[in-house]
Amino acid sequence: MSREGDATHEGGPATPDAVRHAPGYLARRLYQAYTAAWARWVDPVLTGPQYAVLVTVDEHPQLDQGSLAHTVALDRSTMADVCRRLEERGLIERTQAPADGRRKLLELTDEGREALVRVRRRVCALEDELMAEHEDTARIIAALDALARRWETVAEGRPA
Amino acid sequence: MSREGDATHEGGPATPDAVRHAPGYLARRLYQAYTAAWARWVDPVLTGPQYAVLVTVDEHPQLDQGSLAHTVALDRSTMADVCRRLEERGLIERTQAPADGRRKLLELTDEGREALVRVRRRVCALEDELMAEHEDTARIIAALDALARRWETVAEGRPA
Repeated sequence: MSREGDATHEGGPATPDAVRHAPGYLARRLYQAYTAAWARWVDPVLTGPQYAVLVTVDEHPQLDQGSLAHTVALDRSTMADVCRRLEERGLIERTQAPADGRRKLLELTDEGREALVRVRRRVCALEDELMAEHEDTARIIAALDALARRWETVAEGRPA
Repeated sequence: MSREGDATHEGGPATPDAVRHAPGYLARRLYQAYTAAWARWVDPVLTGPQYAVLVTVDEHPQLDQGSLAHTVALDRSTMADVCRRLEERGLIERTQAPADGRRKLLELTDEGREALVRVRRRVCALEDELMAEHEDTARIIAALDALARRWETVAEGRPA
């Protein structure tokens, strides 16, 4: 692997090899950079996970909050927090399922649908920008997905 | 890209394509899975960023906190928080630079060095596990690093 240019940060000494080649360090940098890029390119208030919820509720109206959590890979408490914020901003409505009052069913409001259309264009522009230097975007996306699934399996396992 | 197996989550409908192929969704899943795996395999208290700080201070004693933030890719306020926690747990010592009282210089304590040795073995075991299915670990690590650098550049830029 080339060491050119990636060993130093402005104002600091070289990042130790044990850190800069660590998969978790790289995952953190990706996630941090994505979050910062999202705030600048898409929306400083509506977050990536909130957008994922809007997209999914648009595709699956009357979905319950627990199923949605699985579908967008959020834990239940984060999911509840995301939905509460979206409801407060008038982008989704939560109703109780007739058969089971504890289940909350979700639906986009008209404002939610408008927000989704408006934001979707900027999300596409951001994603084009993020992947612009990759000739084979599908390949790196598939590699990231395979890695994420492997890591999710490791996270559920235990050391030998 | 194969769609087998990756379109559904337990208990929820298929993840919409616009979400599950999104680079940021994948980055979030990677980071979430890594954080969960770390807590289980390495240490539920000492975090990945805290470990990165211990490794770097061990390699560069008397480093100042601001430079360290650049080197381990943390913003200054997160860095201050990480250092405060490590200091409270007796793993690092912070002293004021003689020439500039605002600069804080960091050094590992004996306990910090012991913690580093103890944790390092578990970190290596975790990283082996995370990358176990990849034949060419160096190649995917290089790809993640290139992607992180690209995304950091996009995060600093602005939409056209």
